[in-house]
Amino acid sequence: MKYTKKERQKSLLETLTKNPFITDENLATTFSVSVQTIRLDRMELSIPELRERIKSVAAHNYEEEVKSLPIDEVIGEIIDIDLDNQAISLLDITSDHAFARNGIARGHHLFAQANSLAVAVINDELALTRKSIITFVKPVKVGDRVIAKAVVVSRDVEKNSTRIEVTSKVENETVFVGQFNMYRGTE
Amino acid sequence: MKYTKKERQKSLLETLTKNPFITDENLATTFSVSVQTIRLDRMELSIPELRERIKSVAAHNYEEEVKSLPIDEVIGEIIDIDLDNQAISLLDITSDHAFARNGIARGHHLFAQANSLAVAVINDELALTRKSIITFVKPVKVGDRVIAKAVVVSRDVEKNSTRIEVTSKVENETVFVGQFNMYRGTE
Repeated sequence: MKYTKKERQKSLLETLTKNPFITDENLATTFSVSVQTIRLDRMELSIPELRERIKSVAAHNYEEEVKSLPIDEVIGEIIDIDLDNQAISLLDITSDHAFARNGIARGHHLFAQANSLAVAVINDELALTRKSIITFVKPVKVGDRVIAKAVVVSRDVEKNSTRIEVTSKVENETVFVGQFNMYRGTE
Repeated sequence: MKYTKKERQKSLLETLTKNPFITDENLATTFSVSVQTIRLDRMELSIPELRERIKSVAAHNYEEEVKSLPIDEVIGEIIDIDLDNQAISLLDITSDHAFARNGIARGHHLFAQANSLAVAVINDELALTRKSIITFVKPVKVGDRVIAKAVVVSRDVEKNSTRIEVTSKVENETVFVGQFNMYRGTE
């Protein structure tokens, strides 16, 4: 589908509102234009580049907020967190995360992103995983950006237990789902 | 319990037959003697030190045997493998594997050892994890040696599917259990 420049810029704004973490390369593919065109559009619309967009989201000091572990022990970059409610993180898949043979991301990296987000969302000093059921829905490849969202589903105060569901997506398609049963407490 | 030297050496041999990967330090604790005494016992009984025991087990060239991934992509050291049947690997937990705050091993490292062993045991060129149910039975600490054993439980040829159970132990106590549903095939 061909857009006029005005239509494209309107649609670009909508797309970026829905998914602020989409790359210029993906936008170029979506709108069948060059990456250079997307950059010019962004400049005209005063939309900063992705790196800056992420930084501004991450500017909030999560270090002080997250209780259960130092923030540098979280796998991926936390871009939103509301303790005991939900959290979002982003992980860019590089060749270090993938099988050399086929460029498919190794399962334990997707698990690590999801599991550490499940730990981080807990508003307590100690959070340990008791049990987890995970499904690898679709292979993830080098170059993919994985957005994981953890949601606290339920809490059993007597058992010091919290159930969390993590859904990880690449370009809005689910690639991984994990249910985590966490033990929580003070040390 | 006090042993005579003869009793201790007999019991030492039995212990090492059951668990060849126990350290001199653990043997010393078990028999309430010094590490030096254990070393002397080993010399008298011509039992090589642990590092050599592992090497001799690993001397067999698993590189040629494992099909689904290059052996250096396996997390932990494979010490026994019988394709499409069972496999064993060993992972020494260092501070790199643990939460800085409490020295407890992070779940994704135990998962990575188990998951990569489940991939390695498959006698096909492509092995991907579809679904996994994992239980962290007991916290693992820095200095622990985790022995994971993967057993192929069943195979559904029509669905290209293989079910594998992995049990990980520290000093013969189960610390982690994982069920893995794997997709397999040629690429």
